[in-house]
Amino acid sequence: MALTLGLVQHACDDTTETNWQRTADGIAEAAARGAELILLQELHSGPYPCFEAHPRHFASAEPIPGPSTARLAELATRHNAVIVGSLFERRAAGLFHNTAVVLERDGRLLGCYRKMHIPDDPGYYEKFYFTPGDAGAAGHAGAGHARGKRQRGFVPIDSSVGRLGLLVCWDQWFPEAARLMALAGAELLLYPTAIGFDASEPANEQARQREAWQIVQRGHAIANGLPLAACNRSGHEAAARFWGRSFICGPQGEMLAEAGEEPAVIVAEVDLRRSEAVRCMWPFLRDRRIDAYADLSERFRDCGCGGGCGSGGGCSGD
Amino acid sequence: MALTLGLVQHACDDTTETNWQRTADGIAEAAARGAELILLQELHSGPYPCFEAHPRHFASAEPIPGPSTARLAELATRHNAVIVGSLFERRAAGLFHNTAVVLERDGRLLGCYRKMHIPDDPGYYEKFYFTPGDAGAAGHAGAGHARGKRQRGFVPIDSSVGRLGLLVCWDQWFPEAARLMALAGAELLLYPTAIGFDASEPANEQARQREAWQIVQRGHAIANGLPLAACNRSGHEAAARFWGRSFICGPQGEMLAEAGEEPAVIVAEVDLRRSEAVRCMWPFLRDRRIDAYADLSERFRDCGCGGGCGSGGGCSGD
Repeated sequence: MALTLGLVQHACDDTTETNWQRTADGIAEAAARGAELILLQELHSGPYPCFEAHPRHFASAEPIPGPSTARLAELATRHNAVIVGSLFERRAAGLFHNTAVVLERDGRLLGCYRKMHIPDDPGYYEKFYFTPGDAGAAGHAGAGHARGKRQRGFVPIDSSVGRLGLLVCWDQWFPEAARLMALAGAELLLYPTAIGFDASEPANEQARQREAWQIVQRGHAIANGLPLAACNRSGHEAAARFWGRSFICGPQGEMLAEAGEEPAVIVAEVDLRRSEAVRCMWPFLRDRRIDAYADLSERFRDCGCGGGCGSGGGCSGD
Repeated sequence: MALTLGLVQHACDDTTETNWQRTADGIAEAAARGAELILLQELHSGPYPCFEAHPRHFASAEPIPGPSTARLAELATRHNAVIVGSLFERRAAGLFHNTAVVLERDGRLLGCYRKMHIPDDPGYYEKFYFTPGDAGAAGHAGAGHARGKRQRGFVPIDSSVGRLGLLVCWDQWFPEAARLMALAGAELLLYPTAIGFDASEPANEQARQREAWQIVQRGHAIANGLPLAACNRSGHEAAARFWGRSFICGPQGEMLAEAGEEPAVIVAEVDLRRSEAVRCMWPFLRDRRIDAYADLSERFRDCGCGGGCGSGGGCSGD
């Protein structure tokens, strides 16, 4: 079951129509190169708003379904491709999310994923804007999870090209997110993202950050025996220089396609059957110690000694 | 707080004294190059026994404390270095573990870690030999966990050179293990290991496997903001060609030292203060969604629809 996957990496400026034109052109190019599934970057219709914390940016939010899903539906239908987009969702007055959406080839909205892990760093003030996605109910996901009826937690979205483990940007640093998607049957891990350098950082630090960003995600692919794609934006905005480097890797973390820092469309063929073979060779899911993982739901495992264990600062007793 | 860390990667043959001489020579070299913490490879005193499943290999198991910990204690004292060793532990008749041990500079046995995730693949028949390490009690670790009083689960071991997150080989593929050690305050992640190629595999598959092995572990370093070292064996034994490539990386996954496939001693200085800076820049521990991670203790999140959700083979309903 070979799937041709395309990623559209572009710069954004203040003109919404220009950004949509870049997105549409990229989708057209990816489709012309055979892509049946096309992944866009995070918040692709405008400049990244979180470089500052200002209420005026809430005006760019929109409902789901809404203008962005309508445009994406039209593009999906026109190019007969499943499209994964990203938008600033207004769920209710004063309640906003950073949300990824999946449009089927026939334009149907299959479901959405609301970013679960929200960053807040200088230049990335996301906690001001985005409420974290709702936690799912404890225990097993119920029937219907795959059809967009639930939009809670780490729930993959079924499409004609497979069960999509859709996550967003900051989620990419958390092995828990990738694992939960894999355990819920995801066949691909997909990350729309917007990450860049702080211009004040030295070149070697910039290189370490960019390499870490790829390595940790390739690690998720390996640990879960799944192909993975991350689509990052390009270009300079405010203080950030978005580093591009969108990539597609296979279930052993092997690079299948990689963009540079400039705008680019990359396309690769992903053989979903390889996950089966790789997981049978390295059967990690067989050997997980689920009897010993309860503390993953703890914030930190303080030793509880009240400071008496003599282990120094690592033991706060709180 | 700079720490000089050394790794001793060597081949093993059927002569125990030869293997111990190689270990001792490597420790001496690492210490001469300034190592205060020396990590050995998995089961370093003999050939890897699990290439076949045969009861005769149980004869090479030993208690803790025992002959290996006595030798390691002597080497630790002689070289004034903390040593992390690995042995085939006989805990009781018919009850064996694959266990790593920590010896303090003064020769004291500080604690041990019993391998939690046990592989079983062609040529790596570990489930025949090794009982998985006991799961820890649920919830927080109790006082005294750092002094070797408990040898359960993912519990780091305190030493004069830091709180050591000691794991073994197959554990290295499981993000859960690294995370639990980090949440318990580990300052370093350490993996004695024995992994190699199957000679029947083509070169490109061998390269993917070896690269995946490094990438997934560098990913753990990144996700947890911790330095990490893996010490692998070298040489041909039975059907395996152990691939060496022992390495030390920093908390952004950046390579600090790396061996080739041949026997080698590698040494690097690790600045434990960098973890503090890296974790403040990328504060992943701040943003973990512990309200949404309960399903990490599930084997698989089947959707529970009884096959009616229309999602195909991924939905077994069991």
